Amino acid sequence: MSAEPRHLLSTANLPLNQIESLFQRADDLNNKYTPADLKKILLGQFVVNLFFNDSTRTRISFEVAAKRLGADVINVAIDRSSLNKGETFLDMLQNIQAMGASCFVIRHPETGILKELAPQLQIPIINAGDGNNEHPTQGLLDVMTMRQHKKNIAGLTVAICGDIAHSRVARSNIPILLKMGAKVRVIAPQSMMPPNYFGGQVQSFTDLRAGIKDADIVMMLRIQKERMQTDEIPNEREYAFHYGLDTEKLKHAKPDVLVMHPGPMNRGVEIDSAVADNPKHSIILDQVSAGVAMRMAILEWILTGK
Amino acid sequence: MSAEPRHLLSTANLPLNQIESLFQRADDLNNKYTPADLKKILLGQFVVNLFFNDSTRTRISFEVAAKRLGADVINVAIDRSSLNKGETFLDMLQNIQAMGASCFVIRHPETGILKELAPQLQIPIINAGDGNNEHPTQGLLDVMTMRQHKKNIAGLTVAICGDIAHSRVARSNIPILLKMGAKVRVIAPQSMMPPNYFGGQVQSFTDLRAGIKDADIVMMLRIQKERMQTDEIPNEREYAFHYGLDTEKLKHAKPDVLVMHPGPMNRGVEIDSAVADNPKHSIILDQVSAGVAMRMAILEWILTGK
Amino acid sequence: MSAEPRHLLSTANLPLNQIESLFQRADDLNNKYTPADLKKILLGQFVVNLFFNDSTRTRISFEVAAKRLGADVINVAIDRSSLNKGETFLDMLQNIQAMGASCFVIRHPETGILKELAPQLQIPIINAGDGNNEHPTQGLLDVMTMRQHKKNIAGLTVAICGDIAHSRVARSNIPILLKMGAKVRVIAPQSMMPPNYFGGQVQSFTDLRAGIKDADIVMMLRIQKERMQTDEIPNEREYAFHYGLDTEKLKHAKPDVLVMHPGPMNRGVEIDSAVADNPKHSIILDQVSAGVAMRMAILEWILTGK
Repeated sequence: MSAEPRHLLSTANLPLNQIESLFQRADDLNNKYTPADLKKILLGQFVVNLFFNDSTRTRISFEVAAKRLGADVINVAIDRSSLNKGETFLDMLQNIQAMGASCFVIRHPETGILKELAPQLQIPIINAGDGNNEHPTQGLLDVMTMRQHKKNIAGLTVAICGDIAHSRVARSNIPILLKMGAKVRVIAPQSMMPPNYFGGQVQSFTDLRAGIKDADIVMMLRIQKERMQTDEIPNEREYAFHYGLDTEKLKHAKPDVLVMHPGPMNRGVEIDSAVADNPKHSIILDQVSAGVAMRMAILEWILTGK
Repeated sequence: MSAEPRHLLSTANLPLNQIESLFQRADDLNNKYTPADLKKILLGQFVVNLFFNDSTRTRISFEVAAKRLGADVINVAIDRSSLNKGETFLDMLQNIQAMGASCFVIRHPETGILKELAPQLQIPIINAGDGNNEHPTQGLLDVMTMRQHKKNIAGLTVAICGDIAHSRVARSNIPILLKMGAKVRVIAPQSMMPPNYFGGQVQSFTDLRAGIKDADIVMMLRIQKERMQTDEIPNEREYAFHYGLDTEKLKHAKPDVLVMHPGPMNRGVEIDSAVADNPKHSIILDQVSAGVAMRMAILEWILTGK
Repeated sequence: MSAEPRHLLSTANLPLNQIESLFQRADDLNNKYTPADLKKILLGQFVVNLFFNDSTRTRISFEVAAKRLGADVINVAIDRSSLNKGETFLDMLQNIQAMGASCFVIRHPETGILKELAPQLQIPIINAGDGNNEHPTQGLLDVMTMRQHKKNIAGLTVAICGDIAHSRVARSNIPILLKMGAKVRVIAPQSMMPPNYFGGQVQSFTDLRAGIKDADIVMMLRIQKERMQTDEIPNEREYAFHYGLDTEKLKHAKPDVLVMHPGPMNRGVEIDSAVADNPKHSIILDQVSAGVAMRMAILEWILTGK
């Protein structure tokens, strides 16, 4: 064990060769092992899932990945925990660490909290989504899915559409895409577009058709219904009219465009079922499958250094 | 993998030889394997328990069965899940399927919903109770328990008493019993008796004493207290007076009658403690034990075809 | 299987040689086994955690201990269970027992209920805290932690401070400490001090400084905020002023005093952060680590007799 645990809080500082090696390893873990051999990889490790907000899918994806590799998994739903008794979150983490936990997988509503906590722990944290900040495993699995379908990321035009300002999915995808040489566009209503996003390295659009023109990949973001009361986006119907991806709008992208969504989808709002379920374009369920493989690779890397 | 997954949604179409083979296999799994050998049978499989209503016992029974056979188990309590976020149930199932799930075990409040969903999935569904429709694993474990105590099902008189109209337990027991040659009677207040139940293949009674006369097996059903406001069944005390099984009423059945109940019991309502806890007649806890064995056999059959 | 299962409900009747042997075994399990060898010890056993009150830490500690030894673990949160349907708790236990459970680990709000239930079961109960009565595994892990730091318990002065009247932690520590030859003091406001506590075998103090004078060990108890409305303890601030352990008060104990707390801590109420986080005195996280080791030893002993 090194003195400094290897956290995964962000994709911003992940070296390109590490990213490539995770892609490769995720493929290998998925294809080259028997179930019994996989189970030896993390035998004796114990992974703690701490999820503050309900997030069934991400929690299940990590749980499956860890169990496939033979780790023991403890699930802690924070609202039903001793935090209710006035304990600090750091105390809770230090306690579970003292029980022999190997790493934490944490979803937390507060932006940046994991960065504050990490230096006070001796075991790694994997960020499973912190507030409006990052969701690095989602970024990695998304680009991995793109790579499975398009050989090279370099040169691709990737358009990400939705509430960019609050999207940890966008914030974790973009550094990887830029590093790998993709052209990135973001599309959002003015009120959901952050100023000077990624220091001008991405192009901004307020018009969906213009933003996806000739795109190779269109990634639609889940819209939070509670954000629906700004002046510019008065309701779901209005949002769907301007920013919902349907068959007609999709024609502005390349003919072989791929459509992605981190889920869960609001069908009929940010994406039409005719698009989401179209096997010619949609790779949404491929993202989910890649998620388990990528999380196996990440857990192995974080816990064993390999 | 065959193109068509093998669902278990109902007992109605289960061939007699399949039923017999499940009984045999459940016995074998329970008696002829070491714990370590059992754990190899479903190694690498991953069973997803999706329970909508609280149903601790059935969930635990499946969880134990799957873990004994070495499968990984993921529990999803639906009320705390992403369904809350407006996702469709089918989307959730397809997502978990994309994560590599081997099968779903589902308890759902809506009658018939699993039959709609099954054709849209590539992995099997085991029905753990859908609305007022069926609970096939309960039917199988019940008849298995009878067979452990009475050599032949053929020729037995089985009386089922309670809210027949809403009972998925009755609806899943009866096809098996009829197929195996038992005589089936159902006993209920008029308001809880469905018209033309099983096309006249079962005898209907509104009087408990008449219905259990000379019965070999009496199966008492759990009464839902929220159904207690019909004209005919004004309250629990009234129900217990007419339809509660006590020592006196039980004398009308055969001297070696066996008493069953799917649990959880309302003691003093549909069944008296003096009956429920009488080791001479009650095989209620044997049903619970048979449940784990039967669910091991079912999971193995559904997942491996054996 | 012996006819009488081996319950662990209290530390009062635990023989000294059994206690010593658990300390030894806990150390061995923690240090002398590979993960793979540990997993063989309880293979095929199935441990059921039944926690009534939220108690994340104790539940996790048992879950980790059981999984490290290869047992399957089922978690049941009682408030979301079939007890809601009016079932008796005994029925629920008997049902889970009939499913093949190997033992129950139970946290229950009712003092003494486990002692009533135990004779009606064929499998062991481990008391994980019953009302204001006992928490025997906490007592064992606490004294184990003391022994790791001070060679001999005999002759030590141990001062326990807090709501002694309602503390199951105190009630489970004291019999072990007395048996091993420690001098025990309890410190509490008059309203939280039980009369004739341990038949005069422990010394009582209402003044913290007097109570911890020259103590080797000071154990601070979590104060329940809902108990804060007696005449003598009007609020948290008042309690902290008189009974909160801070650096100044701690000077009255021995210079090498060790500070303990069963957690979760109310920082700034019964204990100051300057004390809780001082590595020279605080062994609070060592208690947590010892907890997993001790619970492994207890589970092995209860389930295999070794």
